[in-house]
Amino acid sequence: MSYHIPKTQVAAVVPGRNQSVVIQHDFPVTQPSELKPGQCLVKMIGTGVCHTDLHVSRWDWPIEPVTPLVGGHEGVGEVVAIAAHTEASPVKLGQRVGIKWIAYSCGDCEQCRQGLEQNCVSAKLSGCTVNGTFSQYVVSWVHIVTPIPEGFDSFAAASVLCAGVTVYRALKYSDARIGHWVVIPGAGGGLGHLAVQYAVAMGMRVVAIDTGAEKKKLCLELGAEKWVDFKQTTNLVSAIKEACDGLGPHAAVVTSPYSEGYTQAVDYLRPGGTLMAVGMPGDAKFETSIFWTVVKNISIKGSYVGNRQDSIEAIEIAASGKVKVIYALKGLSDLGQVYNDLQKGNVAGRIVLDSSK
Amino acid sequence: MSYHIPKTQVAAVVPGRNQSVVIQHDFPVTQPSELKPGQCLVKMIGTGVCHTDLHVSRWDWPIEPVTPLVGGHEGVGEVVAIAAHTEASPVKLGQRVGIKWIAYSCGDCEQCRQGLEQNCVSAKLSGCTVNGTFSQYVVSWVHIVTPIPEGFDSFAAASVLCAGVTVYRALKYSDARIGHWVVIPGAGGGLGHLAVQYAVAMGMRVVAIDTGAEKKKLCLELGAEKWVDFKQTTNLVSAIKEACDGLGPHAAVVTSPYSEGYTQAVDYLRPGGTLMAVGMPGDAKFETSIFWTVVKNISIKGSYVGNRQDSIEAIEIAASGKVKVIYALKGLSDLGQVYNDLQKGNVAGRIVLDSSK
Amino acid sequence: MSYHIPKTQVAAVVPGRNQSVVIQHDFPVTQPSELKPGQCLVKMIGTGVCHTDLHVSRWDWPIEPVTPLVGGHEGVGEVVAIAAHTEASPVKLGQRVGIKWIAYSCGDCEQCRQGLEQNCVSAKLSGCTVNGTFSQYVVSWVHIVTPIPEGFDSFAAASVLCAGVTVYRALKYSDARIGHWVVIPGAGGGLGHLAVQYAVAMGMRVVAIDTGAEKKKLCLELGAEKWVDFKQTTNLVSAIKEACDGLGPHAAVVTSPYSEGYTQAVDYLRPGGTLMAVGMPGDAKFETSIFWTVVKNISIKGSYVGNRQDSIEAIEIAASGKVKVIYALKGLSDLGQVYNDLQKGNVAGRIVLDSSK
Amino acid sequence: MSYHIPKTQVAAVVPGRNQSVVIQHDFPVTQPSELKPGQCLVKMIGTGVCHTDLHVSRWDWPIEPVTPLVGGHEGVGEVVAIAAHTEASPVKLGQRVGIKWIAYSCGDCEQCRQGLEQNCVSAKLSGCTVNGTFSQYVVSWVHIVTPIPEGFDSFAAASVLCAGVTVYRALKYSDARIGHWVVIPGAGGGLGHLAVQYAVAMGMRVVAIDTGAEKKKLCLELGAEKWVDFKQTTNLVSAIKEACDGLGPHAAVVTSPYSEGYTQAVDYLRPGGTLMAVGMPGDAKFETSIFWTVVKNISIKGSYVGNRQDSIEAIEIAASGKVKVIYALKGLSDLGQVYNDLQKGNVAGRIVLDSSK
Repeated sequence: MSYHIPKTQVAAVVPGRNQSVVIQHDFPVTQPSELKPGQCLVKMIGTGVCHTDLHVSRWDWPIEPVTPLVGGHEGVGEVVAIAAHTEASPVKLGQRVGIKWIAYSCGDCEQCRQGLEQNCVSAKLSGCTVNGTFSQYVVSWVHIVTPIPEGFDSFAAASVLCAGVTVYRALKYSDARIGHWVVIPGAGGGLGHLAVQYAVAMGMRVVAIDTGAEKKKLCLELGAEKWVDFKQTTNLVSAIKEACDGLGPHAAVVTSPYSEGYTQAVDYLRPGGTLMAVGMPGDAKFETSIFWTVVKNISIKGSYVGNRQDSIEAIEIAASGKVKVIYALKGLSDLGQVYNDLQKGNVAGRIVLDSSK
Repeated sequence: MSYHIPKTQVAAVVPGRNQSVVIQHDFPVTQPSELKPGQCLVKMIGTGVCHTDLHVSRWDWPIEPVTPLVGGHEGVGEVVAIAAHTEASPVKLGQRVGIKWIAYSCGDCEQCRQGLEQNCVSAKLSGCTVNGTFSQYVVSWVHIVTPIPEGFDSFAAASVLCAGVTVYRALKYSDARIGHWVVIPGAGGGLGHLAVQYAVAMGMRVVAIDTGAEKKKLCLELGAEKWVDFKQTTNLVSAIKEACDGLGPHAAVVTSPYSEGYTQAVDYLRPGGTLMAVGMPGDAKFETSIFWTVVKNISIKGSYVGNRQDSIEAIEIAASGKVKVIYALKGLSDLGQVYNDLQKGNVAGRIVLDSSK
Repeated sequence: MSYHIPKTQVAAVVPGRNQSVVIQHDFPVTQPSELKPGQCLVKMIGTGVCHTDLHVSRWDWPIEPVTPLVGGHEGVGEVVAIAAHTEASPVKLGQRVGIKWIAYSCGDCEQCRQGLEQNCVSAKLSGCTVNGTFSQYVVSWVHIVTPIPEGFDSFAAASVLCAGVTVYRALKYSDARIGHWVVIPGAGGGLGHLAVQYAVAMGMRVVAIDTGAEKKKLCLELGAEKWVDFKQTTNLVSAIKEACDGLGPHAAVVTSPYSEGYTQAVDYLRPGGTLMAVGMPGDAKFETSIFWTVVKNISIKGSYVGNRQDSIEAIEIAASGKVKVIYALKGLSDLGQVYNDLQKGNVAGRIVLDSSK
Repeated sequence: MSYHIPKTQVAAVVPGRNQSVVIQHDFPVTQPSELKPGQCLVKMIGTGVCHTDLHVSRWDWPIEPVTPLVGGHEGVGEVVAIAAHTEASPVKLGQRVGIKWIAYSCGDCEQCRQGLEQNCVSAKLSGCTVNGTFSQYVVSWVHIVTPIPEGFDSFAAASVLCAGVTVYRALKYSDARIGHWVVIPGAGGGLGHLAVQYAVAMGMRVVAIDTGAEKKKLCLELGAEKWVDFKQTTNLVSAIKEACDGLGPHAAVVTSPYSEGYTQAVDYLRPGGTLMAVGMPGDAKFETSIFWTVVKNISIKGSYVGNRQDSIEAIEIAASGKVKVIYALKGLSDLGQVYNDLQKGNVAGRIVLDSSK
């Protein structure tokens, strides 16, 4: 099998700091002969857009991106070339694979050896420290890409690769188990609606927090057992405790960029409970009480995307039908508009871009 | 066996809010016939004094104490009476036992059933919500008191019952294991010098942080492998990282009442590391970066004293000779002066009071 | 509230070794005034019959029962008396509660302190070392009985208290999680059909092993994903491996009284997999290969009923509707016939006895 | 840096089944240009001899070795060549590294992704399915070899790479912790004397089982707290229980090739205890009681060598001085004689061969 690889492609490029994304039609394609051992070339089918992409494109974060920057870190495509001298590739030419935020991890450092690939000392980040999925051809690594099960929608898979993996790993490491109460603030949102479903699939009892009749309906349909509308609740902490046997939930998965969500969680969590922190605001701080964190034996666990195994599990659970992704489909060339909408807070749910448009 | 139980005793009493401790010589002794099933009367030998006692005596904390208040929560004494109708007492008349901060836990609520007795819904706190060890006879519960192994110094045991248990449990739940780097800020202090020894006994590699030649000598003698003098270090975070292979420690046990110690820990910890929070300032907050806690996969675990099993383990390890308690011995009647010294920060190491003086 | 407690009752009694069960109409009822502190009297509604009861009634096991013996260890009834001098009872007069195999554990020994109440040094066993649930009034302990949630069928609850708890705990400690393959040999039987449902409720993927069209239908309806008929399969080990991605299952819950089920499990389990052993044959031995257990990193974990928390969890999950108990209802006076049927192997599913008949 | 690589070398070779080892002086050396990406050539300094080598050389095991066979799987040497097209090698030319039983694991399969590299679907075994360390130059893989810390004796390191890693991992996964009793049968032997030291370094309390005054002296010097001479004890099970508070040990690390050691362990272990099985007899079976394994909640865990991280930890702990290897040094050309001695059971402790002799 061999593929025709064009010399140029369409890509959404941020030329530099303080500049807007532009659609470039003559962005060069890395040719197969240029790949280093272990690399592969992936022809993109679709890619999700994440708040992280917006942060990176605005140099909001304490991590310096490449310039010019091709963003994007949750994409699905087909392997169209594998580098020469690549031993024992776990993926094949023609296979459908996913590209994630962690574009590369070495597999050998202390963190990798123990499964914390996200903290690899040589990690490369898609759409940040290396070019990402907002183009038609992307260079990735055969040992890192995630195989996509046959029959699973590429656009849905794209959303799972970051949003899904993030909330799935948070639940997996939360120590919550069947019968435990889990609170999902923002349950009707892009990450939240996936978190509700993963939690339900594990047998947990979900308290969905969000606002509005539409989101309420969605959350309850997805299996949440209790609903708290934060706009209609005068005391969120006591409302949540009350919803959970009066004792509070065993765990909370907080994706918020604001301190408040974390502060409240320590207050409403059951003694011994776990706050899974997955939000990544550039500069907010926990402002939670040390006294109550100690006295209630609360664990606050930072959880950063997931490793290869977490990603495969998240994808397989979704592909089995237990988790349904709600997304709006647009074209790659719409990215500028999507960024504008994200900045204005006009986006509900996940956005996925068709790479061919 | 039966004991003569006097009607009155010496006790150090805080009559009420905003009042100083007074030594009362005619404080009533609860008589055996007044004990409820499950209770016992303990004739005190010695009792530690803890910063917590000072906090409680000053109404500093969000927990309301009894009045008049007999403080004290790390004491050792002899069982001199067991209530009638007490089934299956695990301790016997004449046995030497310890009284801890958690004076009573029900054994039946969800938290107790899972070993989180510190968060029992019916918990009683020694020297806070029930009278404590700063008197000569104390009412306690047969199911809760900690047996003291034969031959182990009562005054040393007293210190282990709170300070020792606290740092031992923190280490036990820190996920650190043999060969891991553990940072102990305040390593030369009352909790710190015990933490150093428990960590060393578990095979961990200890970085002691404190200041002064005397504390340095002590920490290194107790087995710390590295020493960082925080007054002589311009960049504490990088000094600690450097001491630990350049990657930072796997865990830190932070006993500080100030935010700073927690903020720094997130910075210097190795990715995937654990911050065991055991300090109990009345109102300080974590001011740690959410971004870095998430990206580094840091766990911040509140750890509140210990349960019965943790306490027995801490005592047995110390009794085996692996942990040596450094304390200054005074008399019960010195408590007022000890409080003054604590308030002025003039106390190095643990203070233990001889209950007979 | 107070109850009329009769002096005598109906009870199914085994007078001694090598004797058959007889229905006695004048069996004495322990009167409230005879209860010891901590005890309660429960008026039975219904009780399950378990193979264990048959074993005990035949002195098959290495544990010596009381004589005369009132068997039975999975029963539901109402608290009609609580002993004088009982402090802090977690259950109330009139409350519906369950009695389990572990009739009493002290709460204080090393095993109890760590949640292994089944191995309490002072444990008493219902229907074995103390009289059990095959009578109309049973003496139990307020700290040990399991509250039954309102609205949950007493007869179903009875079956959960032993069969349900046993398989639930096995799954809970199996390290299997969402998406993992779990094999349940005997999936259509009394324990098996409950195990299938608990596993499905935790998100596991179940391979049901049993025989016959009726059991196949049942297992698939209960959520099993794969079915293997052991009578129609020439190579059970390879059939199971094949059903689980070719690699074998992550866990197996083996309830069999025969060595063969355990030996096969080590062969078909995925490397790193867990064999939860819950069968209690009087004298069978594991005959599994040491070489392959080591080389495949298999864990074989004995799992013995459950503690108070496990029991409450198993009951609550069933009461929430996630687990449906299939049982045949008979009267207490039918016990002799039920034993005959059990001995002949003529019983499919669980038998529950109505205590009023 | 570049090295002169000879065309031929000395190697100890088993030409085929039922044949004895012969020392060959003209065995070909794989040249650097023949290495595949990811491979390296290691010039051996020393290599341990393990019972496993004897098993493999006699075709005793259910794994088919290569022919002709160069055995050996615990060796230390210097990297003298790295294959072309090898990306991101974690080791450098000239670095001292160790070769282990697991010569190669892919890093990508489900088992590897979760740290169970020993069960990699593409695993290669040193001195079994690929040539091992009983030659002067060995082909290995840069991602798998274990760096040897500066200053640590190469011959001691060789023994740690198999015997040390095996017992260290067993202890690491045994759930035993500081203060727990651990039984080491064969404590004075090659694996046993290392197990005693690792256990002591973790704060465990060791009961050493072996026979003879010399081994007794050794075990007590290495830190064992209790000694049981199995030849002078009429009832081993009760002697061990008695040594451990009358309740039995929390864990046992059984390296025996005979069923008996495993059967006894289930009897003497404390309820809830763990039997770490690391012996690899070709055909022995567990003959432990199912009833007691279940009723005592015993876990029997197979533990097979270790992964890369386990190996690095075992080496670093030993290199820090906490574990001292006792070995007898011979030359590579003595292997035939060593095999004879092993077969006759005439070997006490570990044998290490100087590769230059």
